[in-house]
Amino acid sequence: MDEFIKAEILAVGTELLMGQIANTNAQHISARLPEVGIGVYYHTVVGDNPSRLKDCLELALKRADVVIMTGGLGPTKDDLTKETIAEFFGRKLVLHQESLQKIEAFFNKLNRTMTENNKKQAFLPEGSLIIENNNGTAPGCIIEDGKKVVIMLPGPPKEMKPMFDETVIGYFSKKASFKIVSRFLRIFGIGESAMEEKIIDLIDGQSNPTIAPYAKDGEVTLRITARCNNGREGEELIKPVIDEIRNRLGDAVYSIDNENLEEVTGKLLIKNNISISFAESCTGGLLSSRITEIPGISAVFSGSMVTYSNEIKAGCLGVSEDTLNTHGAVSSSTAKEMAVNIRKQMNTKLGVSVTGIAGPGGATENKPIGLVYVALADENDVACTELNLWGDRNRIRNNTVLNALDMIRRYILKNYK
Amino acid sequence: MDEFIKAEILAVGTELLMGQIANTNAQHISARLPEVGIGVYYHTVVGDNPSRLKDCLELALKRADVVIMTGGLGPTKDDLTKETIAEFFGRKLVLHQESLQKIEAFFNKLNRTMTENNKKQAFLPEGSLIIENNNGTAPGCIIEDGKKVVIMLPGPPKEMKPMFDETVIGYFSKKASFKIVSRFLRIFGIGESAMEEKIIDLIDGQSNPTIAPYAKDGEVTLRITARCNNGREGEELIKPVIDEIRNRLGDAVYSIDNENLEEVTGKLLIKNNISISFAESCTGGLLSSRITEIPGISAVFSGSMVTYSNEIKAGCLGVSEDTLNTHGAVSSSTAKEMAVNIRKQMNTKLGVSVTGIAGPGGATENKPIGLVYVALADENDVACTELNLWGDRNRIRNNTVLNALDMIRRYILKNYK
Repeated sequence: MDEFIKAEILAVGTELLMGQIANTNAQHISARLPEVGIGVYYHTVVGDNPSRLKDCLELALKRADVVIMTGGLGPTKDDLTKETIAEFFGRKLVLHQESLQKIEAFFNKLNRTMTENNKKQAFLPEGSLIIENNNGTAPGCIIEDGKKVVIMLPGPPKEMKPMFDETVIGYFSKKASFKIVSRFLRIFGIGESAMEEKIIDLIDGQSNPTIAPYAKDGEVTLRITARCNNGREGEELIKPVIDEIRNRLGDAVYSIDNENLEEVTGKLLIKNNISISFAESCTGGLLSSRITEIPGISAVFSGSMVTYSNEIKAGCLGVSEDTLNTHGAVSSSTAKEMAVNIRKQMNTKLGVSVTGIAGPGGATENKPIGLVYVALADENDVACTELNLWGDRNRIRNNTVLNALDMIRRYILKNYK
Repeated sequence: MDEFIKAEILAVGTELLMGQIANTNAQHISARLPEVGIGVYYHTVVGDNPSRLKDCLELALKRADVVIMTGGLGPTKDDLTKETIAEFFGRKLVLHQESLQKIEAFFNKLNRTMTENNKKQAFLPEGSLIIENNNGTAPGCIIEDGKKVVIMLPGPPKEMKPMFDETVIGYFSKKASFKIVSRFLRIFGIGESAMEEKIIDLIDGQSNPTIAPYAKDGEVTLRITARCNNGREGEELIKPVIDEIRNRLGDAVYSIDNENLEEVTGKLLIKNNISISFAESCTGGLLSSRITEIPGISAVFSGSMVTYSNEIKAGCLGVSEDTLNTHGAVSSSTAKEMAVNIRKQMNTKLGVSVTGIAGPGGATENKPIGLVYVALADENDVACTELNLWGDRNRIRNNTVLNALDMIRRYILKNYK
């Protein structure tokens, strides 16, 4: 097999050097390029400065075969990437009529007038392949220069990522002499060290495919990567490894397709036609907002109540004053009543509730920050789990949502197989 | 005044080049260095490879005065930063007794035995200043070499950030001959190009402070940066510029302290003691979850209803069947009834509602994806805004939330001054 093609990612933007944003574009590109046989060896970030940018490009072309640039393609005066790179390669910037029409259409659709400076975005280096932007105004482009390839993409991640995924990956895929196929196993309900102990012999014993774990925000992901001649060969190399890992970790493996927990749980609800409603306290609507990220969820999700205050828990959701006074809002009794009542009120198959202390305020001697109850009610019964989470308000709210989604997922796996 | 001291941030770590994590360390360091008169000119990321690392360090020392390195200080074989850098400067690695004791104490506290490879972390280049690590095992260090300074810090952000904030900033603060003060103006309700046209003469005319715009997710931020001898002088340079921009852009400037819209709106609600509740359809709880990110919001926020289906809009929220049948769920009539009814049901000063088509499904001939109504009801009246948004489901939901928060903010500014 051939060697890895070397790539450098060159981001242009003072906002990165000022620390206003993190370079998530480089992360996205780096994660995907190996699929088409390209290894990322360097990331560079430089400001909107033509001379420094030129030096960086020169260096990048020395040490890499492929240079992917992000940023500096917008309408403002600061945006100088195209001008600099065109000059570097001795190419003119020429008007790309189709791109201009797209930009004009973009403004028309929004009922706004296109200002003059927006036209600048439709000028592209002559002889380059144009990459359409369906989520913004600045198109990207691919410049082939001898054996080297330079690609320019806009800086906003919501524009860059679809352009990269839909066009750039396809461009390299056609040229690749070997492929890298990766599968991501998503795991919830077991810590990284505990998981590693269960499969350490697999991790140590593999060379192709390789297995690499990483932990993030209360979840664990396993990346399984095979080097192969085509997708089918890759899948054949990976399949027995996935089977063995699922064998050992069981239902903790919630996706073998890198889906997140809301996708998996949402699809299970839709597939089994299980209607559901939520009553949320400390998560304040986050659980509902996550499940409604899934297109088509309206088939099973009717609605929720965010019952932040005790008055609303009692007045609107009908939790008994007695329960609230005796056990408090953060208790399994309250969580259970919330789940049972929301299920009745919204007339759904399942009712799920969340109540807890996300901090920074609200803790008492017996009820520390991170104490959370999640309850699930069906027509026969109501179950409740106590969670003891750590971290800041954000982490606790996020982790609560993951636990609630996982509780629903495991309920469905148990009752609907 | 002296020239800006130039810095480069050199991150070492294959996990960055594999796209497993974003380089948030570089973001953190970049945001803080200007405070001590240091400008960040480059970020570089390189793998755990001694030869490439040496080349990168050599280049960094050519183009910068200060090089801040992160990563590769841990106990494993992959961690080669210190060895490579010591060799580069021709310095020995010598045992730092205090660091060794700290590492041993760290393991004792966790009731774990220190493995042999952990000792490696206590060896540091001779003649360097040691930076204590209170959140992990690998200490950092500062190497002064002529006029150049190289700083090594560990890779995990939870270790790196406190070491940087507590030690590195203090180290440079003593040496700084001038400072940089930045203020961030956050703007909503006007596009980037339209805003630039209104203040282009200011942007072009300034040298100190400078003004730089950038757009992100439907918002615009203006960064105003002054070079000065101290914080007070910086503020004095910046103030007239902020005043002039506010003069021209009016209430579109929602923060001069880089707060986000939920913070600004949440604080206005709390400060004026205005109770509020939400009825959400297409945002599915996202508006509620955003406002409940603000600690202390429970003083004014009681709860919400996510009324995803028409049955819940009618049955639980009391929107009239007649309105739903005549005008449809996505209409100003429905939005208004939702706002009025949630306000009554939750007994709050204001009621805010959202209904729209986030896509990908649900569009009709007269009601395209991105059509959204946001309504706000108080005791006297109910106002409704029609939005025509573009983008995917995620973007439309996010933008709807921003518009709803902005509607509340402007209502308070108008009625509570």
